[in-house]
Amino acid sequence: MSLRQLLLGRPIPNEQAEEEKLGPATGIPVLGLDALASAAYGPEAALTVLMVLGSAGPRYIGFITGVIVALLLVVQFSYRQTLAAYPDGGGSFSVARANLGLRPALLAAASLALDYVLNVAVAISAGVGALVSAVPSLFPHTLSLCLALLGLLTVVNLRGIRTAGAAFLPPTYLFVGCLGITVLIGAWKVLSSGGHPLPVAPPPLLPASTATASAWLLLRAFASGCTAMTGIEAVSNGVPLFHEPRVRKAQRTLMGIVGLLVLLLSGMAWMCHAYGIGATTPGQPGYQSVLSQVVAAVTGRGAFYYVTLAAVVCALCLSANTSFADFPRLCRALALDSNLPAAFAHVGRRLVYSTGIITLALLAAVLLILFRGVTDHLIPLFAVGALSAFTLSQLGMVMHWRRMGGHATRHFQWVNGVGAACTAVALAVVATAKFSEGAWLTVVFIPLGYSLLKSCRRHFERVRAATESHHPICVKRLAAPIVVVPLRRLDHVTQKGLHLALSMSPDVYAVQVRGQPDAPDRLEQRWEWQVAAPLRAAGRPVPRLDVLVPSYRQLVDPLLGYVRGLADAHPHRFIAVLVPELVERRWHHFIIPSHTATLLKMMLLFRGGPHVVVINAPWYLNAQHRWRAPRQ
Amino acid sequence: MSLRQLLLGRPIPNEQAEEEKLGPATGIPVLGLDALASAAYGPEAALTVLMVLGSAGPRYIGFITGVIVALLLVVQFSYRQTLAAYPDGGGSFSVARANLGLRPALLAAASLALDYVLNVAVAISAGVGALVSAVPSLFPHTLSLCLALLGLLTVVNLRGIRTAGAAFLPPTYLFVGCLGITVLIGAWKVLSSGGHPLPVAPPPLLPASTATASAWLLLRAFASGCTAMTGIEAVSNGVPLFHEPRVRKAQRTLMGIVGLLVLLLSGMAWMCHAYGIGATTPGQPGYQSVLSQVVAAVTGRGAFYYVTLAAVVCALCLSANTSFADFPRLCRALALDSNLPAAFAHVGRRLVYSTGIITLALLAAVLLILFRGVTDHLIPLFAVGALSAFTLSQLGMVMHWRRMGGHATRHFQWVNGVGAACTAVALAVVATAKFSEGAWLTVVFIPLGYSLLKSCRRHFERVRAATESHHPICVKRLAAPIVVVPLRRLDHVTQKGLHLALSMSPDVYAVQVRGQPDAPDRLEQRWEWQVAAPLRAAGRPVPRLDVLVPSYRQLVDPLLGYVRGLADAHPHRFIAVLVPELVERRWHHFIIPSHTATLLKMMLLFRGGPHVVVINAPWYLNAQHRWRAPRQ
Repeated sequence: MSLRQLLLGRPIPNEQAEEEKLGPATGIPVLGLDALASAAYGPEAALTVLMVLGSAGPRYIGFITGVIVALLLVVQFSYRQTLAAYPDGGGSFSVARANLGLRPALLAAASLALDYVLNVAVAISAGVGALVSAVPSLFPHTLSLCLALLGLLTVVNLRGIRTAGAAFLPPTYLFVGCLGITVLIGAWKVLSSGGHPLPVAPPPLLPASTATASAWLLLRAFASGCTAMTGIEAVSNGVPLFHEPRVRKAQRTLMGIVGLLVLLLSGMAWMCHAYGIGATTPGQPGYQSVLSQVVAAVTGRGAFYYVTLAAVVCALCLSANTSFADFPRLCRALALDSNLPAAFAHVGRRLVYSTGIITLALLAAVLLILFRGVTDHLIPLFAVGALSAFTLSQLGMVMHWRRMGGHATRHFQWVNGVGAACTAVALAVVATAKFSEGAWLTVVFIPLGYSLLKSCRRHFERVRAATESHHPICVKRLAAPIVVVPLRRLDHVTQKGLHLALSMSPDVYAVQVRGQPDAPDRLEQRWEWQVAAPLRAAGRPVPRLDVLVPSYRQLVDPLLGYVRGLADAHPHRFIAVLVPELVERRWHHFIIPSHTATLLKMMLLFRGGPHVVVINAPWYLNAQHRWRAPRQ
Repeated sequence: MSLRQLLLGRPIPNEQAEEEKLGPATGIPVLGLDALASAAYGPEAALTVLMVLGSAGPRYIGFITGVIVALLLVVQFSYRQTLAAYPDGGGSFSVARANLGLRPALLAAASLALDYVLNVAVAISAGVGALVSAVPSLFPHTLSLCLALLGLLTVVNLRGIRTAGAAFLPPTYLFVGCLGITVLIGAWKVLSSGGHPLPVAPPPLLPASTATASAWLLLRAFASGCTAMTGIEAVSNGVPLFHEPRVRKAQRTLMGIVGLLVLLLSGMAWMCHAYGIGATTPGQPGYQSVLSQVVAAVTGRGAFYYVTLAAVVCALCLSANTSFADFPRLCRALALDSNLPAAFAHVGRRLVYSTGIITLALLAAVLLILFRGVTDHLIPLFAVGALSAFTLSQLGMVMHWRRMGGHATRHFQWVNGVGAACTAVALAVVATAKFSEGAWLTVVFIPLGYSLLKSCRRHFERVRAATESHHPICVKRLAAPIVVVPLRRLDHVTQKGLHLALSMSPDVYAVQVRGQPDAPDRLEQRWEWQVAAPLRAAGRPVPRLDVLVPSYRQLVDPLLGYVRGLADAHPHRFIAVLVPELVERRWHHFIIPSHTATLLKMMLLFRGGPHVVVINAPWYLNAQHRWRAPRQ
């Protein structure tokens, strides 16, 4: 069993494709963890902006969460329609491509790709950050831990979608369960105390309110809270991952994810308001995350508190996985539309798009290494990417229904239109409010990704235009090629080469380049008795032996000139340069001797001209694989 | 003009080889700078050991220098004979190889190679160290300066021996001139003052003597002073670098180098003794090099003082160059004897052994990077390498004369025998005295180099034994090869491939591997009208089209299996796999598409078996180099 098989498992045959699919129960962890985990940091992000209001801050969290929940529900209804209309995967790219044209589609793709890559880097560094603050002795190993976790996620995803589902099921439900129980207990306590519950472990006191809430402040809080929106798109991209009937299963999964997220977000907002919990300054003494304050206030700092916090750390880390499920499918859609190399559309050994998975892992690794494992300030970029993609996708759906026409689609147009308008407004708010905090980077990265995709596309179009053929093959001028055999001495290696050359063509030219003053063996005499005489005796044409003695001691240039000279003299024939080469199967030897041969082959392929082809005639040093001349 | 030509100059034709040679005046800088520069640090090394004697120390420097000078003269007489006996370059390796056999020769080669590499690293870092202590703001750039200087030396040497001679002439003679003038003025002052000269700038006072000189202390001082011996071997290796009559010219050069060195060393020792100058502790406040003390004592700290010190720094830096002249010649001798790849014996564009020069530069760069540009503690390794090589070389000469027999050689035997004995004793002293200070590293590096050379040799012997052929070529079974054309679609690229295949053989098999569920175009229909029909109409055999549909979505493995199946079915024919390939001349495109093709070609060459050969049929995207089918 090879290392690859140990890591990734046996290859899965095509026939088992259906078994590798998801239902709603496994779909929620694989495609929803990203969205659900945002319940852990969304409210905190909004409350951090509200900190300037002091004890008055938590009063506004209910309103802000309400707007976000409403937006979520609008987006969910809009995406339900997308799922039904694009059962082969209706990611923003596909929808925009079909309805809005190439440019908006590539823009959506670049936005989403940025979102996915950031999500991986940020989620992993957030999870590792939480772990490191719990166990400070691990601090110097932050980057290594991040990369190890990234490697683990990559391997799990390369093993196939079913393995990933099984691996992420327990942490997801533990996270949702713990937060749900907290909210339920809290709700009972709030109701039974008439709205003024007594915290078990009281949260830090908030300073008295001094500032008043401005509209701009509330907008900024909303923009921060919008990070909770990311990850909703995942299901629309992943419809083909589901068992049949896949649209129904995907819709149920989406509903499950959004339903759970709405419950958790609302519950958290309620608890913050009821217990008067606000954000504290991260990195300063006395910092406590909002989530930790809520759980402590509701249940105290017992075993449940620690289990819940551990579940949150797990969910944060693993929420990177949603990108691993979706990024490769986005790349596949791009590749099938000729915007990326075809390899991104190839299904690998375990029925996943391995190239996309590995690309995502590499890009995230670059981000993690560049920022040494601390990527907090990249968070604003996220929401911009996600909201741009949402808006384009829903605009696409509006066009889709409009093209379908008819009375029934009027209603659908309205749903998607409202969705598009809402997300567009949210996008404008986030981009403005967060511009100086990092959102300006999207102005760099999204156009970069866009132009990369565009130049790939141009290249593939150019290749297709140049290579496409609508003519029958040419059957004239099929004379055998002229075969040139460069050789240094006459040994078994070159004898095999000459044998092959003679079997291919009556016109064989052997060439020796005497480049070095301490020259190789003179061939003429051996040539006579080892090659010319036996061929003459058999009545066959004798190859010509040419010796080149260049003044500047090069090997490759004179040969290249010789070959091009032959090509000019015989414009209608192929010139096949046969390079006899010693091949060692042991790696450490195989670098040394093929040096010149490799250079020669490269130069011939790049500079030889249209009629020159290169034949590799390997001769194995290893005795059991060695070529032997037929017995006389 | 290309960058290469700008850096290295135009290539030099073979006919100009004689013009690129040296006489004694240019030979001294190119081959002697290493030896001469040791006058700057040899006395200091000995005096450092004598520091424990306080003011009594300088009294012994005369005696120790006397022993070293005697040893130098013995070695010089011994090498004069070597030059005459080996006019084609009598480095330690060649002499030991001819007279003592392979193992001692490889041992000598490994010792010398170590010596040369160390010399480059140590000389450069010493020079840069002196520069940095003069201009402390350069300190953070120590390593970059070292590597820049190494790069400069490499380029100058790749430009050819004549350029190197011209470049190193002025600094060498400036160095010798300044030191010589100092010694002359000093001698006059000492003599005119009756042995008690008054220093112009008095050297630091030495503490009163407390310890007494033990034999062990003197031996250690001698061992340290022996670093002055390195570099003497250079001329013996470089005899072919000289104009005719080369032996005479080389002998004169050697005499010139040793003569100058003896004068400088004796003069320095005399001045130290006369002015009572001892070593100070490096790195501590008040440190002053012995050389600086001598010059200051004799001439004061005027302009001459600074010119002299600048010349010393130059000479130290450039003394690395001797290794650049000799290491490549050592490698050439090793390569001609099959102990290194043949490339080391190839004369490059500017008539120098470029491979050896570049290898030396790389090895020295590795050392400099590993030690971050500070290599002082590697100095003891030097002398061990050089003295081992001397001893083996002179032992070889003894055997040489013995084999010659006759009365006249008796005398020569004696000269070389005394030389061998002296250097053997010196080697034993240095190795013992310096073992703990770093000489033990030679126990690691010399055997490492030895076994590397040995394993190269074994490999080349194995290859020669396996490939050497004393039979005429086989002229039976020259049937055309079976040509396999793997294709994905039918376009101009594959049509060129098929045209070539049809021109080579009547037996052509086209294979399409449908690895992906979202498969490439189905070929059958297009095959019929674009390939089969026109060939049938022309009365030619029609290639077979096979379609492979593997369950695990691979491309390469099924093709490999198909080809090996064909090879088994036709054991007496070659199977030529023709890979049609799109070639872009722009670098950034050429990485993307050839991915699978490259993997396929590698697997076929390494796993295909003895009858499989690979044909590269490139098709240029660039319109002006594109292949076009002959007109119908």
